[in-house]
Amino acid sequence: MKLRMKLLDFDLGSHEIFLNATDAERYGLKALDRVVLLPNGAREGVSSIVKIAHGSIPAGFVGIGKEVCDHFEAKEGAEVTILPASRPKSVDYIRKKLDGKTLKGEEIRAIIEDIAKGNLTDIELTAYACATYSYDMNIDEIVACIEAMVDTGERITFTRGPVLDVHSIGGVPGNKYAPITVSIVAANGLMIPKTSSRAISSACGTADFMEVVSPVEFPAESIKRMTEKVGGTLCWGGGVNLAPADDAIIRVEYPLSIDPHAQLLASVMAKKKAVGAQFVVIELPTGDGAKVESEEKARALARDFIAVGERIGIKVQCAVTYGGQPIGRAIGPVLEIREALQVLEGSENPTSLVEKACSLAGILLELGGAAGKGDGYALARETLRSGRALAKFREIVAAQGGNGNVTSESLKPGKFHFDVKAVQHGYVESIANKKLNRIARAAGSPRDKGAGIYLHLKKGRRVEIGEPIYTIYAEHEHKLKEAVALANQLNPFQIEGMIIEEVVE
Amino acid sequence: MKLRMKLLDFDLGSHEIFLNATDAERYGLKALDRVVLLPNGAREGVSSIVKIAHGSIPAGFVGIGKEVCDHFEAKEGAEVTILPASRPKSVDYIRKKLDGKTLKGEEIRAIIEDIAKGNLTDIELTAYACATYSYDMNIDEIVACIEAMVDTGERITFTRGPVLDVHSIGGVPGNKYAPITVSIVAANGLMIPKTSSRAISSACGTADFMEVVSPVEFPAESIKRMTEKVGGTLCWGGGVNLAPADDAIIRVEYPLSIDPHAQLLASVMAKKKAVGAQFVVIELPTGDGAKVESEEKARALARDFIAVGERIGIKVQCAVTYGGQPIGRAIGPVLEIREALQVLEGSENPTSLVEKACSLAGILLELGGAAGKGDGYALARETLRSGRALAKFREIVAAQGGNGNVTSESLKPGKFHFDVKAVQHGYVESIANKKLNRIARAAGSPRDKGAGIYLHLKKGRRVEIGEPIYTIYAEHEHKLKEAVALANQLNPFQIEGMIIEEVVE
Repeated sequence: MKLRMKLLDFDLGSHEIFLNATDAERYGLKALDRVVLLPNGAREGVSSIVKIAHGSIPAGFVGIGKEVCDHFEAKEGAEVTILPASRPKSVDYIRKKLDGKTLKGEEIRAIIEDIAKGNLTDIELTAYACATYSYDMNIDEIVACIEAMVDTGERITFTRGPVLDVHSIGGVPGNKYAPITVSIVAANGLMIPKTSSRAISSACGTADFMEVVSPVEFPAESIKRMTEKVGGTLCWGGGVNLAPADDAIIRVEYPLSIDPHAQLLASVMAKKKAVGAQFVVIELPTGDGAKVESEEKARALARDFIAVGERIGIKVQCAVTYGGQPIGRAIGPVLEIREALQVLEGSENPTSLVEKACSLAGILLELGGAAGKGDGYALARETLRSGRALAKFREIVAAQGGNGNVTSESLKPGKFHFDVKAVQHGYVESIANKKLNRIARAAGSPRDKGAGIYLHLKKGRRVEIGEPIYTIYAEHEHKLKEAVALANQLNPFQIEGMIIEEVVE
Repeated sequence: MKLRMKLLDFDLGSHEIFLNATDAERYGLKALDRVVLLPNGAREGVSSIVKIAHGSIPAGFVGIGKEVCDHFEAKEGAEVTILPASRPKSVDYIRKKLDGKTLKGEEIRAIIEDIAKGNLTDIELTAYACATYSYDMNIDEIVACIEAMVDTGERITFTRGPVLDVHSIGGVPGNKYAPITVSIVAANGLMIPKTSSRAISSACGTADFMEVVSPVEFPAESIKRMTEKVGGTLCWGGGVNLAPADDAIIRVEYPLSIDPHAQLLASVMAKKKAVGAQFVVIELPTGDGAKVESEEKARALARDFIAVGERIGIKVQCAVTYGGQPIGRAIGPVLEIREALQVLEGSENPTSLVEKACSLAGILLELGGAAGKGDGYALARETLRSGRALAKFREIVAAQGGNGNVTSESLKPGKFHFDVKAVQHGYVESIANKKLNRIARAAGSPRDKGAGIYLHLKKGRRVEIGEPIYTIYAEHEHKLKEAVALANQLNPFQIEGMIIEEVVE
């Protein structure tokens, strides 16, 4: 059937078109059927999922969703041929996994290819995520998944090496080691094309705070060029088309708060493979409120990362770290990059941040051959102390189009702030990561760059009544109020001897 | 935030609105966030899921999807207040089920209520379906699910009884017992408000062939009135708002071809409870290509139906029947209702149909007290033979607004037809239900009422080379061609000694 295009720039999440109910009826198509769209004269089409509209799309027209437009010569009013297509075979394989069976390599490839092409509905994508969550995948399945995810996206191939990378599986607020670690590694002549994520449910991702000092969105080609020039990048992974199937899967996992074991491994390793990394350090923060709650689980996950790495030609080393409270004292874009810069500028505080950034850098320096076995940490500290890491960080910022002369002094958090004070004395028994994330988000982080939280105390410290525990910053007064109200309700700091809840019979 | 409404009559499957990206950014909303919509002056709002648009929805406007319009005083250009809302608690319970845990009654109720309100995204709905598929539900969970599904939809309460119902779990083509069984039961003074489905993946549902002789879409009130007047109905279940959560769940199960055990029980029993049934007979067709493949499984499922019935106050009896080939000879709307009418008019053929319809009616007559124990079948046969069943069927058709004088003679299948002939002699070893469904659908069934298949032979019969095995009917020549091509490819009849596939080394 031939219809005229009506472009709809709705973000639909998958390839979708809207047919008028009358046209759909006439051509025997119904909601969720598959079609192929062929513009006049084109030889290759783009596949799409049918949805039904009534008056909003007149008969004779087809509404083209944004995702289809992006892969297609769509032109308002131009004619397009729509051919029925069959349901992809990959849906049968998803069903097979839902039945608890093991998938063959080519079956997983078919699924990943259809995901990358936007060929699956949210229903099918979710079933895939749930099936891998309920039944997990064995290592052969995970390797097949990674290879297919890498092949269906862009890849960076460096002409020289070694290429290193570092990744934290996340879950801990204030985890700002990356600018320090990357600068130390690059300052020692190694290549580290680091890509990071923006916050999804957390308060602030590495890409969110790097954006305070430089642009972070670059195509694969620029990441390659910048890394070859200055040794490292600190970019946003979502700006480049590495392993796009992974992003599609994460999109449906997020609202369910599920993070299937196999998918976590595949997701991290596919992005590292696509970026050409040969040596990768994975940080696994562990503890209450972190993504992995026990050390046993962290060690098991570490073994899986190493085993998967071996199969795809990446040497992996894992670092299990303490993630039961925020790293450093700052949470939120300006506050976090300021704290990282202070360390680069020579501050020995916060020690938790200095230690972690240098430990991770030390492992990378040894893996990349810049330091002998056991000498990595010392070289990292020396690189930091000497100012070489700061110089390298400024080179990276300048290469990304930011101000290479940026100082921590120049970075100011939001002008509205509120000190939360202790209502009793005692020792800080626990700090709830997730509650801090929620308060920081209420204050405007990561969208409002100046919003966030600065902690005056960490776990185990003595506090007196009336002493400020933390300060909330915001760019807008009403958001500060919301954050303060939420802070009063959530109470993220647990002081020894505090009554959590009064139980009245 | 206040925005002006732009009505979009897109069938989106759940409550969705489209915000311009700028407005969304300004108010801190992103795709899949929840909001409540309040029209000016209204005190109660309707909840919705946010999607993002760009130029298609200008800033200051909000695109309102059809599902929201249907529950809402939506008026083009009118102002509406949009308030952020939190993610429903039910998503946590879905996650809990995905972790393999047992849900409490109130947790299931929260899920079902949100489903009925269109409050869950496709992602969340699918996760629920997959979780119950992977982990099943225990009887307490199933009962809680049924009660919540009934409470969130319309209910029919009859002033007198007994109220009976019959349901086949489906999967076998040509299963046209309902008009005969319902007419026999109603002719004996019992009430049987039967609602049926349209075909989803099969060739033709009861509602599809009943529609040839009368309207089938009625509100609950009309079903009650007609049943109280003539004793029975043969309506489309989808036309009435009984257990709407069930329809929403089926919508996501269908594209995945999954039919979770717990959901099957809950779905059938909730609709029966909502329609006020006190006694229900469930038919379980069993055999190759039927929904239940072994008798053991059918018996286990039968026990589950009976146990669930006991808990919700419905006396259930189950009939395990042979479903390894089509019932009778006709598949497709006109062909099926014609065959059913022939039996009502006195034909003793096809015996498989006569036997089944009378056996099911016999059980119902005994359950409802119209026949003594062991006498139901004989009364059913007598009701059929005497013409009382035919007279009752005509009353029902007339009550539903059809032609009460309809005869089988007057019903003609499509004018285009093709005889598929045997290419070798032997005995018919098997007839593949699913292949016949696909061929009938290719011919145009159920949309084209005259399209379908008429079988000249059933299993075990001798066939000679060149003898017609079945005839394909269509209303359009090109659809006949497509169906014939598919028939050649699929070969639904297996003749003894036939080479299925030549394997060439």
